Amino acid sequence: MNNFVIGSVTMFKPDGTVETANIHVSGDKISAITRGEVTGATVIDGRGKFATPGLVNAHTHASMTLLRSYSDDKALMDWLQKDIWPIEDKMTRHDIYWGAALAAVEMIRGGTTAFADMYGPCMEEVAKVVDESGLRGSLSRGLIGFADGNGERIAGNVELYKNFHGAANGRITVMFGPHAIYTCPPDYLRKVAAEAAKLGAEVHMHMNETQTEIDDCLKAHGKRPFEVVAETGLFDNGTLAAHCVYLSDDEIEIIKRKKIRVAHNPGSNMKLASGIAPVTKLLANGVTVALGTDGASSNNNLDMLEEARLAALLAKVDTLNPLAVPAAQALQMATDFGAQALGLQNVGRLEVGCKADIVLWDMSGVEWQPNYNPVSLLIYAANSAAADTVIVDGKILMQARELKTLDAEKICAEFTACANRLTGKA
Amino acid sequence: MNNFVIGSVTMFKPDGTVETANIHVSGDKISAITRGEVTGATVIDGRGKFATPGLVNAHTHASMTLLRSYSDDKALMDWLQKDIWPIEDKMTRHDIYWGAALAAVEMIRGGTTAFADMYGPCMEEVAKVVDESGLRGSLSRGLIGFADGNGERIAGNVELYKNFHGAANGRITVMFGPHAIYTCPPDYLRKVAAEAAKLGAEVHMHMNETQTEIDDCLKAHGKRPFEVVAETGLFDNGTLAAHCVYLSDDEIEIIKRKKIRVAHNPGSNMKLASGIAPVTKLLANGVTVALGTDGASSNNNLDMLEEARLAALLAKVDTLNPLAVPAAQALQMATDFGAQALGLQNVGRLEVGCKADIVLWDMSGVEWQPNYNPVSLLIYAANSAAADTVIVDGKILMQARELKTLDAEKICAEFTACANRLTGKA
Repeated sequence: MNNFVIGSVTMFKPDGTVETANIHVSGDKISAITRGEVTGATVIDGRGKFATPGLVNAHTHASMTLLRSYSDDKALMDWLQKDIWPIEDKMTRHDIYWGAALAAVEMIRGGTTAFADMYGPCMEEVAKVVDESGLRGSLSRGLIGFADGNGERIAGNVELYKNFHGAANGRITVMFGPHAIYTCPPDYLRKVAAEAAKLGAEVHMHMNETQTEIDDCLKAHGKRPFEVVAETGLFDNGTLAAHCVYLSDDEIEIIKRKKIRVAHNPGSNMKLASGIAPVTKLLANGVTVALGTDGASSNNNLDMLEEARLAALLAKVDTLNPLAVPAAQALQMATDFGAQALGLQNVGRLEVGCKADIVLWDMSGVEWQPNYNPVSLLIYAANSAAADTVIVDGKILMQARELKTLDAEKICAEFTACANRLTGKA
Repeated sequence: MNNFVIGSVTMFKPDGTVETANIHVSGDKISAITRGEVTGATVIDGRGKFATPGLVNAHTHASMTLLRSYSDDKALMDWLQKDIWPIEDKMTRHDIYWGAALAAVEMIRGGTTAFADMYGPCMEEVAKVVDESGLRGSLSRGLIGFADGNGERIAGNVELYKNFHGAANGRITVMFGPHAIYTCPPDYLRKVAAEAAKLGAEVHMHMNETQTEIDDCLKAHGKRPFEVVAETGLFDNGTLAAHCVYLSDDEIEIIKRKKIRVAHNPGSNMKLASGIAPVTKLLANGVTVALGTDGASSNNNLDMLEEARLAALLAKVDTLNPLAVPAAQALQMATDFGAQALGLQNVGRLEVGCKADIVLWDMSGVEWQPNYNPVSLLIYAANSAAADTVIVDGKILMQARELKTLDAEKICAEFTACANRLTGKA
């Protein structure tokens, strides 16, 4: 059983403040937080390190790492329909596995400890990567209604839930993944809602990413997306809604009433020119706003620290208010709110009884000097190469930037072979 | 004399495309670019590396590293007047030196090879840092008209020009640094213009950073800032205008007519909630738009790669056009356009006859896989820790991330002592 102490570490507390303390880990949990000096063989020296909860990537498509830098600076539908979908059609079980494995290496090296993944087919391959890597993953099968004639995809999501929800000491959870209003008609969403309700499963769905999507929905249904989806019952078991760039006041009321958690994706929304989500308005309404990278082909990385920075910077310039989304709030969105968005209990906070999902950031780089405020420095000055040690469920996945669970070299080689075969041009 | 070849390197060409080649360096210049295999003791292995021109930080205040993370998430004038200015008033020659020295370490480690600095007093200390570090610096004394009763500051800028313009094999150049329209009345700007004209010196000035600044100028002068300043003759010898967030069409005409180069500072403009500069409109008008970090206390780092990414992302979401500022253009803004902005000839491009200011980026990180497009990967996926080798004027300042000209440990220690003394809280 894991049993160690991170001694004399600068620690980000759940209330957004910072204190020097010792974090005691027993098994998968934080068992105590103490002050004063600790010694002994099981002490990890925390001096010069900043301990935060692990970062939570609340919306991604891990295996899309295979398509990173394959198509950039394109209009959204050209990108998706001409470049991305034809390659995705060719992906095998093998590709899904190695794509997610590379994503796992990248996430651990950037201080991410949990992620919400929507993709497929073969999400059990991603489950395997979660199991092997030691990460926490909330997995959902991407359900495209138009392409799911006999409901095989829904059936696949049901199987995924039955086989993996709660697996790996609870590190794997499963949601249903209806893709979006423009790929899933209301009747299909009703079917998904019924299956999810039977299992008590939550839902992960793209919502209101672009203005076109809203316009098309209004044309087809005479209502906005949240209104249409709410009527199908899909929001009734708990929902993680990705993007939420364009929202009416009535839709924000639905989000509040249904306790929907939002995954804000500033990097992807900027790169694809989707627009700016009303983050400060959602936060002021008490909505849980988490952060996500989206897939690596529209970002182009899985760097959650960068996403937290973008969230803080974009909210300020969008509202012309430099007080919007201060550094501590951005860090909470990337950790505590992220865990809530994934439906995880006792994750995302450094407090006694919580899961020991911890990142130690190395504060020795020049960009961390002078060190008046480690929260500001992490969010505004550092980059993800400062992630030194990553712990999930009390297990060390990386220490001094050395991976403990994954073989990065082998993964890179297999991954490159997959990319080459898929595109013929890596 | 420097004499070496970077062999078989993936190279960013002035036209925005990429090719594998050998870059030959002789003295301070690129003497040849060849294809095929090269061998020998003077060959730096470029395989797996991406060679770009050195990044140019076209607007910063280097010694403000001392105030990094001292005051964040504040309204601009609270930040400046209550927190920043009182500390700056206490800065000594010693502080200016060590603040700039830490900035130099940070810039080299992030792939920056040249910077335009406006600060003071004691800009000769920054000149010393430029000389010792091997960087290229365009220095200007920050001139505050209201605080320059007997013109000591202008006289200081004149002395700086006479003593340092063209020094260190031309690596140091000097501009005049009138701070802004709200700190320099027109009569004062006329004096600055006259002194600059006598010497043939260029000018580096903050322009149109906030809407308040425009409103106050309209109230005081009945005209917008570029109109007021143009009438003083200040723009007649060549100008680097920082920020340019709010511009009328008439002001864009002045920028074109006076061939003013713009330093866009997306990170600072976002963090301070100043607004979004009309970058695509300026570029469409043929204006040279370079990139800058601004000071580290409003950014909070000197990471030009991050600035290039922000420029690309912000332009897209601002115009709702995913084709705005593609990756290659962002990289050109951070290199070629940056050198032009600093008034440098034959800098900022990897071509024969140009100064050998070169960065080799290590492409081995997982965020660089698969490698379909190194330009996209550098701008959208990598972080500045990928800067492996930095060359300025043919001299290697960093190799395999090891600094060759500066002692980072000593600089950090001296810098921290300065910060402690200034603020009593580092």
